[in-house]
Amino acid sequence: MTITITAFERSPDGGKGLARDTRVRWALEEAGLPYEVRLVSFRAMKEAAHLALHPFGQIPTYEEGELALFETGAIVLHIAERHQPRLFPADANARARAIAWMFAALNTVEPPILDLVTVKFAEGDRPWKAERQPLVEDRVRIRLNQLAARLGDGDWLDGGFSAGDLLMVSVLLRLRPSGLLNEFPSLAAYVARGEARPAYQRSFAAQLAINAAPLAVG
Amino acid sequence: MTITITAFERSPDGGKGLARDTRVRWALEEAGLPYEVRLVSFRAMKEAAHLALHPFGQIPTYEEGELALFETGAIVLHIAERHQPRLFPADANARARAIAWMFAALNTVEPPILDLVTVKFAEGDRPWKAERQPLVEDRVRIRLNQLAARLGDGDWLDGGFSAGDLLMVSVLLRLRPSGLLNEFPSLAAYVARGEARPAYQRSFAAQLAINAAPLAVG
Repeated sequence: MTITITAFERSPDGGKGLARDTRVRWALEEAGLPYEVRLVSFRAMKEAAHLALHPFGQIPTYEEGELALFETGAIVLHIAERHQPRLFPADANARARAIAWMFAALNTVEPPILDLVTVKFAEGDRPWKAERQPLVEDRVRIRLNQLAARLGDGDWLDGGFSAGDLLMVSVLLRLRPSGLLNEFPSLAAYVARGEARPAYQRSFAAQLAINAAPLAVG
Repeated sequence: MTITITAFERSPDGGKGLARDTRVRWALEEAGLPYEVRLVSFRAMKEAAHLALHPFGQIPTYEEGELALFETGAIVLHIAERHQPRLFPADANARARAIAWMFAALNTVEPPILDLVTVKFAEGDRPWKAERQPLVEDRVRIRLNQLAARLGDGDWLDGGFSAGDLLMVSVLLRLRPSGLLNEFPSLAAYVARGEARPAYQRSFAAQLAINAAPLAVG
């Protein structure tokens, strides 16, 4: 059955792989599933046809036969469930723990990281930027400290590579430009291990091919 | 098998039901599962014994035999999976969509709501509060508008009540003190439908009984 995802016609990050379709591409590559990509413009994302797929007008979406999904976490979980043991361990308890790491990545680690994006960009011209940024950076450091403590000298968060690592690495990648990731060498090495996976490399190259291409003028 | 969750010894909200153990209690009540509660102090939450259960030093945690979980979303998902159809539809595609709403609640709707808490409380004494609060409120309104458009005149987000509604209602409840929820009457009614469920009532009463009791001095 054909799998179709949506991605930005042109990613705001210019192809650094931070748009969330890269996370879904990575999961599909790990699972060995072919997929098609439909590109959407910022205007089309807010129109009825796309809102029917994604109520919050974002990318990525995921279509597979009669199933239409939104939310990267849910899409990755769906791919992982149908294609364990590549992304989920077969043992039910271990799978539940991998899901805990998926939620931890998106819900506990990513929010302060996104707030850092807000303070630097969305509110980058506000008078409070200089004073607020270190507050937010310290909130990020708290999470990174806790995550590094749990990771210890392990390669992955809980046994073998799982969908939990896929999302955690994807979330941490957002931090690279800030320099914060390099304050935590074990986490920087963890992210590098994720990036070194052939499936990640393929997903990164696929999104870059789109974002580096000249934009068609319609 | 005994299920044990953790909760604040004394919730910062004084028993308004906004601490995340209420979400897990609600899921357990919907599933008809008995459970025990271990209360933890703010000091104990940062100590090794609790960090072994929850790497980020928060509540709730969930223990069931050899399984130990953290992250409310993952705990609710685990309860829902083992006890469908009370919290998940039996159809696999419908279940995947319910999971999309769980992630949407925690990842797309809750972050701007938590930012409103930050601006009002964690940064409530900062000079930028007055100017920043309306920015954040407008980000919340964007999400509420989109959510109301999707809900339409339905009772729940996708067919019958699911774990997705449980988390979405729980997230929206945080907005009540701000008055923003009442700007969207269909969402206020949706939240009221959630609160009217007997399982929610029992979970609310259980957390209130702890938070209204005199705190033991150790």
